[in-house]
Amino acid sequence: MIKRRRTRQIKIGNVAIGGGAPVSIQSMTTTDTRDVDATVDQIAELAAAGCEIVRVTVKDMESAKCLKDIRRGIAAPLVADIHFDYRVALESAKHADCIRLNPGNISKPEQVRQVIAACKDRGIPIRVGANSGSIQRGRGKAAKIKGVSGLSADMIAGVLDYLKIFEKEKFYDIKISLKAAHIYETVMAYRALARECDYPFHLGITASGLPFAGTIKSSIGIGALLLDGIGDTFRVSLTADPVEEVRVGREIVKSLGLRNFGPVIMSCPTCGRAEIDIITLTERIEARVKDFPKPLDIAVMGCVVNGPGEAAGADIGIAGGKGVGVIFRKGKIVKTVKEKQLLSEFMKELEKLL
Amino acid sequence: MIKRRRTRQIKIGNVAIGGGAPVSIQSMTTTDTRDVDATVDQIAELAAAGCEIVRVTVKDMESAKCLKDIRRGIAAPLVADIHFDYRVALESAKHADCIRLNPGNISKPEQVRQVIAACKDRGIPIRVGANSGSIQRGRGKAAKIKGVSGLSADMIAGVLDYLKIFEKEKFYDIKISLKAAHIYETVMAYRALARECDYPFHLGITASGLPFAGTIKSSIGIGALLLDGIGDTFRVSLTADPVEEVRVGREIVKSLGLRNFGPVIMSCPTCGRAEIDIITLTERIEARVKDFPKPLDIAVMGCVVNGPGEAAGADIGIAGGKGVGVIFRKGKIVKTVKEKQLLSEFMKELEKLL
Repeated sequence: MIKRRRTRQIKIGNVAIGGGAPVSIQSMTTTDTRDVDATVDQIAELAAAGCEIVRVTVKDMESAKCLKDIRRGIAAPLVADIHFDYRVALESAKHADCIRLNPGNISKPEQVRQVIAACKDRGIPIRVGANSGSIQRGRGKAAKIKGVSGLSADMIAGVLDYLKIFEKEKFYDIKISLKAAHIYETVMAYRALARECDYPFHLGITASGLPFAGTIKSSIGIGALLLDGIGDTFRVSLTADPVEEVRVGREIVKSLGLRNFGPVIMSCPTCGRAEIDIITLTERIEARVKDFPKPLDIAVMGCVVNGPGEAAGADIGIAGGKGVGVIFRKGKIVKTVKEKQLLSEFMKELEKLL
Repeated sequence: MIKRRRTRQIKIGNVAIGGGAPVSIQSMTTTDTRDVDATVDQIAELAAAGCEIVRVTVKDMESAKCLKDIRRGIAAPLVADIHFDYRVALESAKHADCIRLNPGNISKPEQVRQVIAACKDRGIPIRVGANSGSIQRGRGKAAKIKGVSGLSADMIAGVLDYLKIFEKEKFYDIKISLKAAHIYETVMAYRALARECDYPFHLGITASGLPFAGTIKSSIGIGALLLDGIGDTFRVSLTADPVEEVRVGREIVKSLGLRNFGPVIMSCPTCGRAEIDIITLTERIEARVKDFPKPLDIAVMGCVVNGPGEAAGADIGIAGGKGVGVIFRKGKIVKTVKEKQLLSEFMKELEKLL
C-alpha cells in the first residue's frame, strides 16, 4: 500500500537499491577491521540474523588492505566506511562493493575525483553519507532549499554541493544519507532532499542510543520516512551488539508490510475485559511461529469487542470468550475450544495454512 | 520544532487535551474493574510510571458502580471504556472523568443522545473511539473522503456520521481515535480526518502485539503522526504489563522533543573505530541520570568522526579517543581524561549543569 519514491537503481554486490528494489537492511561491524577473523565472524553472525549489506569502518591503510581477506571470507556485500583520508578510500575501492564517503571530512574536489575514478573503474557505487556531527555548518541559508532550515538545510546544501563533483564526472552510481541525532531534523532533511534529486536513500537516525530509546527513535524516524515511500536501504543505529540492529530493522519493514519475514502477530493489550490469558498465549504462539517463513497475519484477541473483527480480518485468529476461544481461518469460524486446548488446536489450524 | 495541529481543547479531569496542551500519555488497566482494590493499586503503579490519564474497561453494570470507589481511591483522571450497552455508559458517566464510546457497537442515535445528555450534565467529555475490528464496513466509498480508501475510509465515514449526533446536540466536548492494527491504514485515517474536523485526537495502533514488535509498530505509527503535529494524547497498546506502555509512551514524546522527561542520551553505535567502551559507558551514564528531572542533551560518542561535532552540539558530551575521552560542556572542551576516570569526571561536570 505504501507508494515508494521513484529513484535510480544502484547495486551493492548482488543487492539492488532503489528503483523498486525491496528496502534492504544494513548493519555495521564493531570489531577492529584489522582483525580479519573476528570481522568475518561478526559478519557471518549479522548475515545469519538477516543483515543484507554489511559495513566496516576503515580507519587506516592497514585496515583497507585487510578488506581483501574479509571480502574473501564473507558472502554479504561489503561497504567500506571512510573518513578523513581519501587514500584509504582508494585502497578500499580495490576490494569493497561500495565506498562510503563523508562530505564533512573528505571534501577536496581533486581527492574526491580520484575516489570517483577508482569506483568507476571497478563499477562500484559510492554512498554520500552526511552526518549532523561532521557537516560544515552555515551553508544552508544561502542554498534556500524548500521546506527546511537550520541543520537540515546545512546537511542538504553540503550534499548538493558535493554531488556536483560527482555529476561533473558523470558518476551517478550514488546513494545518499543525511543522518542527524534528532528525529525531526533527519526526517525534514530527507523529505526535502527527496524533492531535489532521484538518487536512492540510505536512512538512519544517528547516535540514537541504547536499545530501548534507540529502537523507539529509529522506528519513528525511519518508519515515518518509509511510510512516505522514502528510503531504499537503512541501518538502525544502536549502542549495542549490531545483531540487535538487524532484529529491529527487520521488524520495522515487516510491520510496514514492505518485506515479508514470516508471520505478523496482532495481539490486543489485555484489559479487564479479556477472559483468557492473552499475554502467555501470544508469547507461546510467537515462540512457535517465529521461524515460519510464510507471511501470515495472526490475530490473538482477548474479547468480543474487537476480537471477532480483527481475528476474521487476519489469515488466522483467536478471539477469547469466557474460558474459551474461537478460532477463525480466513474470516470463518472453524472451531470453539476450551482455553486449555487453544494453543494446540490453533497450531493444528495454522499448519493447514502452510 | 514540530508544529502542532490546531484543535479545540477538552479537559479530562485536570488534564487538558488539544488546543496547545502538552501531548499526554495514557494507559489502561488489566484488572477486573469489579476488583476495586486491585484496580486502584494498578492505577497507582501506572501513575507512578508517568501515566497521566487512566482508562478502565466497564463491561457491565456492576463494574460501572465500582467506578465510584475507584474514583475516590485515585488521583489520575479516569476514563470509562464502554462497548455494547449504553446503560453502562449512563451509570459510568456519574463517576468517571470521560466516557469512551465505540461507534461500532453503541450506534442507535436515541441511546447515544442519552449518553451525551448525561455527560453534558456532569461536564465531562466523550471519546469517540473507532477500531478497525469493530467498525461497520462499506460506508467509506460513498463518503468520498480525500486521501483515503478501504478500511481507513470506512473508519472515518463511521466517525463523521456518528459526530452528527453529537453536533446536533451542540456537544463538542469530544476527542477522536481511529485505531487500526495496520500502521499505514491508521496513519492515513488520522491524516485524512485531521483535514475534516478540529477535535483533538487520541492516537494508537491497536493490537500491536508483544513488547518488541508492539514498541516498534506503535513508535512508527504514533511517531509519524506526532511528527506531522497530529495527536494530542495517546496510548501505546502492548500485550504486556501496562506499565511498559507508559515507559514506551514517555520515550516517544521525549525523543520527539514534545515533552521534557529528563535527559536525552545520544550515543553512537560503536564501530571498529571506537577507542573506548561506549556500550558500558553509556549504560552507566544512563543508570546515573535516568531520574534527573532536568531535560539535557547528553552525547556519548566513540571517535573523532562525529564525536566532537555531536558532543559539542549537546549540553554535555564525551568524544572518545585512544584510551581517553574529551568532555565537552555547552560546546566547549572542558577536560581530557583517561578512560578510567571518564565516568566520574563526566558526572562532576554534569552536576555543574544542574
